[in-house]
Amino acid sequence: MLDGKQMAAPKLTRKELVDLLKAEFPEASHAMGDYEIEDVWHGGCRLRHRYDDRSLRPGGTLSGATMMSLGDFAMYVAVLSAIGWVPLAVTTNLNINFLKKPAARDLLAEARLIKLGKRLAVGEIGIRSEGEDELVAHVTSTYSIPA
Amino acid sequence: MLDGKQMAAPKLTRKELVDLLKAEFPEASHAMGDYEIEDVWHGGCRLRHRYDDRSLRPGGTLSGATMMSLGDFAMYVAVLSAIGWVPLAVTTNLNINFLKKPAARDLLAEARLIKLGKRLAVGEIGIRSEGEDELVAHVTSTYSIPA
Amino acid sequence: MLDGKQMAAPKLTRKELVDLLKAEFPEASHAMGDYEIEDVWHGGCRLRHRYDDRSLRPGGTLSGATMMSLGDFAMYVAVLSAIGWVPLAVTTNLNINFLKKPAARDLLAEARLIKLGKRLAVGEIGIRSEGEDELVAHVTSTYSIPA
Amino acid sequence: MLDGKQMAAPKLTRKELVDLLKAEFPEASHAMGDYEIEDVWHGGCRLRHRYDDRSLRPGGTLSGATMMSLGDFAMYVAVLSAIGWVPLAVTTNLNINFLKKPAARDLLAEARLIKLGKRLAVGEIGIRSEGEDELVAHVTSTYSIPA
Repeated sequence: MLDGKQMAAPKLTRKELVDLLKAEFPEASHAMGDYEIEDVWHGGCRLRHRYDDRSLRPGGTLSGATMMSLGDFAMYVAVLSAIGWVPLAVTTNLNINFLKKPAARDLLAEARLIKLGKRLAVGEIGIRSEGEDELVAHVTSTYSIPA
Repeated sequence: MLDGKQMAAPKLTRKELVDLLKAEFPEASHAMGDYEIEDVWHGGCRLRHRYDDRSLRPGGTLSGATMMSLGDFAMYVAVLSAIGWVPLAVTTNLNINFLKKPAARDLLAEARLIKLGKRLAVGEIGIRSEGEDELVAHVTSTYSIPA
Repeated sequence: MLDGKQMAAPKLTRKELVDLLKAEFPEASHAMGDYEIEDVWHGGCRLRHRYDDRSLRPGGTLSGATMMSLGDFAMYVAVLSAIGWVPLAVTTNLNINFLKKPAARDLLAEARLIKLGKRLAVGEIGIRSEGEDELVAHVTSTYSIPA
Repeated sequence: MLDGKQMAAPKLTRKELVDLLKAEFPEASHAMGDYEIEDVWHGGCRLRHRYDDRSLRPGGTLSGATMMSLGDFAMYVAVLSAIGWVPLAVTTNLNINFLKKPAARDLLAEARLIKLGKRLAVGEIGIRSEGEDELVAHVTSTYSIPA
């Protein structure tokens, strides 16, 4: 298992990543506006999804789509932290278990790679509501790394 | 396997579903605006996601989040078509395989239930770009049905 | 979607596959003894798992392991039917939904590829009890194809 | 997240579990013979799969079926550790990522619940080869708990 916090520095710092994402993905920047990359280490990262009432669903909870997008983006950042700027890395599989209805609050996602191969990277992402310990969702995801 | 087209009528018609979703989920209506429920039968449905350049990603493709949200919503409609208006049915698991980069076009999702139990419903959803035969993504999903 | 029955012949016939598996995997032949490859076409196959009371579980049902192994092996045969004898193709992901307790009877699995790329193949497998229409389990699986 | 080691004692001790499994599942005891339940705590456990050359595959690795069965059984033990003897709890979903070919050695699985609800329990299981740190497989699984 990669435990990035005890490993080498990330291939891209938090600032480098944020700048590259903004420069290269201007068309996605409105979506990126909902996210904050809080920390990046080799093989992992922590992201925040800022609460926005467009994500609200009946019962005062957040949409599943919000959690899936957050998990997918956290995995993307974790992959880039480990291999550097390879923006065309693509998700091939994502599995999410929804564990608990999240409150109408910020979400925090922590991603870590559990495999980093030449062609495939696999990671897991835990998603929590700010201020809570229990997971609201758990994601595993595979990215394909172009040659 | 449920093959809805040869089974009973859906518990809710397409029109009833659209009206209920609009009335009950006003906060989600801006998101719903991207979707069209094209057909509903018992245990299945076909949905269209209208192309919107907010979903565009580098290389002229659509975001994974767009496909995940479409798959999840198609499954929700398929569940309601089979059990009636139980809006608090919630996704417990979603697994998606991304098969091909979708073009910058409308997406079509066809969902069908493969299990309809008292507590759990399981379905699969194939997602295609309009005008193409090959799947761009394949989803399986489980919903929990409240007692 | 690959609909093998209307496509080219398989790269390996049923007989070629059976002979190769027996010759190359003698150490697995006792396990293979439980399976029969009933039909093979380009991108798909139908396998039978012969009932054996070692697979029995409390309540007269079959173990989950029996269904997972059958699904995985059916996917392997489907991949080889489409790419020829590449025995070191390996599963990278398998997702199974258990839908219904299978009776103490033979199981039939039908696999079909939904993507066949240069590096990855993705398929789905439906598993039924002999003589029944409803699925007892549904599998999606990804294989990595060596260069 | 349940971190069982800091929580209450398991509902069943290791010895109680082993005795109940042997008494109630005599038909599965030959399979159980390959496993050793090494430790059990509330919401988690550690299991060993003893190497057996029936699990060997070409290239000196272990079959995927071996890892899937081990992951499923570890989740079963983790569920029973948290809810007590409810033998008819059944797997509804299992997702496995195969990360690395395991050597021809014992496998160790560590399972922990990430959700324990009234109707559903969700857990993750990491599988390693004895003496190695890296995971060879990672499993997430859902069990349905009968009323």
